[in-house]
Amino acid sequence: MTGVPASRLSLNTATVREQWSLAQCIDGVARHGLGGISPWRDKLQEMGAEAAARAIREAGIGVSGLCRGGWYTAEGSLTQAVRDDNRRAVDEAATIGAECLVMVVGGLSPDSRDLPAARALIEDGLADTLDYARTVGVRIAIEPLHPMYCGDRSAMSTTGQALDICDRLGDGIGVALDVYHIWWDPQIEAQIARAGRDRLMAFHVCDWLVPTRDLLLDRGMMGDGVIDIPRLRGLVEAQGFDGLVEVEIFSAKDWWTKDPDAVLQEMIARGATAC
Amino acid sequence: MTGVPASRLSLNTATVREQWSLAQCIDGVARHGLGGISPWRDKLQEMGAEAAARAIREAGIGVSGLCRGGWYTAEGSLTQAVRDDNRRAVDEAATIGAECLVMVVGGLSPDSRDLPAARALIEDGLADTLDYARTVGVRIAIEPLHPMYCGDRSAMSTTGQALDICDRLGDGIGVALDVYHIWWDPQIEAQIARAGRDRLMAFHVCDWLVPTRDLLLDRGMMGDGVIDIPRLRGLVEAQGFDGLVEVEIFSAKDWWTKDPDAVLQEMIARGATAC
Repeated sequence: MTGVPASRLSLNTATVREQWSLAQCIDGVARHGLGGISPWRDKLQEMGAEAAARAIREAGIGVSGLCRGGWYTAEGSLTQAVRDDNRRAVDEAATIGAECLVMVVGGLSPDSRDLPAARALIEDGLADTLDYARTVGVRIAIEPLHPMYCGDRSAMSTTGQALDICDRLGDGIGVALDVYHIWWDPQIEAQIARAGRDRLMAFHVCDWLVPTRDLLLDRGMMGDGVIDIPRLRGLVEAQGFDGLVEVEIFSAKDWWTKDPDAVLQEMIARGATAC
Repeated sequence: MTGVPASRLSLNTATVREQWSLAQCIDGVARHGLGGISPWRDKLQEMGAEAAARAIREAGIGVSGLCRGGWYTAEGSLTQAVRDDNRRAVDEAATIGAECLVMVVGGLSPDSRDLPAARALIEDGLADTLDYARTVGVRIAIEPLHPMYCGDRSAMSTTGQALDICDRLGDGIGVALDVYHIWWDPQIEAQIARAGRDRLMAFHVCDWLVPTRDLLLDRGMMGDGVIDIPRLRGLVEAQGFDGLVEVEIFSAKDWWTKDPDAVLQEMIARGATAC
């Protein structure tokens, strides 16, 4: 089961965010023979979505996603600013032909401990963005985040919880599953089967290091941690997922300090041996 | 709903582990008018279980638990050493009259990424300890740990998962719920209702700080973080739980550096305002 060829890997720009611009990432992906890219919005806006779309087309690579929309709880209610920013994210995803817009939905509202209220607000926000996304043909992918981010980043902590929302909201919305966020979940096998091909919109990899020195910026390269990545990939592929395997590594003290071409070479090596 | 009187609070010795021995903790609990104590085994063994039992009896305080048994995956299989250590923990819990023996069950086995295997091993271990515990009348309380400890401390990450094991193993086993580990869980309300009074054996409090600077040693005092503690206490009490509310705070840079009498005073103040 182990082994993902370079042509099936996608570079999430966060993996080399300290080293490369989006233009450099696109060039790097092409030079190393990777299958695609997944930009973060800050890098996309820096380059310009139209220019990025042209460069991606010319490079002949795929776009496994756009990171990220969401953050519905940032202002404590679903303000016009929050709605509009998400619609812009949808437009950007459409412009670059992204497979999906990845949603990091936000944690608790400011100065609030009311988790049920945050979750209701998030669902309202997703419904609003989805309405618009359907009109332009962009797929919305909720990324459940590890429970350690529940307070400040995502009150959507499990795949089951995200799929409950998908079931209520209908077509055009699904999940982006990152092994870092889901590997511990005792229900993950059942929930991936429940999701099925239509709702499995993205698959992200990296690794969980033991010990983990920082809650946000200490992810590992595949194979350096304890996640059984081949098992999880097998589960999504058993449902028919055949998209790119996206590598997203936040690593302030390690991978962000390295030569980015060496990072991509290591990604490719680990894709073959540890994914 | 807010407000737990000192007489219903229990001091987990971890909260002042850098400052006080168990004898000092017992004395402190009595002086401050707390309802009980929950020792860790290292402190208990240092004092001696018989001597501790006498001091606890003389102080007239309760024992909300003994921390901790478990760690079934430490040697990669259920060795005699692991079984025996857990039986000794049961004996110690019996000696001090603890309400339950709290189980931190262990993460992945050494050099393993096989989470289903770890979970099977843990269940076998719990069954073994439970068999013995029933003969001496000690209750076994599985403590589901936050998913960020899945690799190295506990492959039991949710209350639902722990209750599945309880359902299979029968009487005498339940859960110790710590708000730090469970507050994010979208199923917590349903799972607490499922547990019911008989399986709710302990309730621990502290708080989740934003940001959290360390995965293990940066818990907050109640009220300093984002957990809605009164809501969670309300859920367990709605099931009939009327035991002590145990305060367990790992805090290397903050509470472990303070005068322990001041820590207990603050615990009492926060019990009244933030629990």
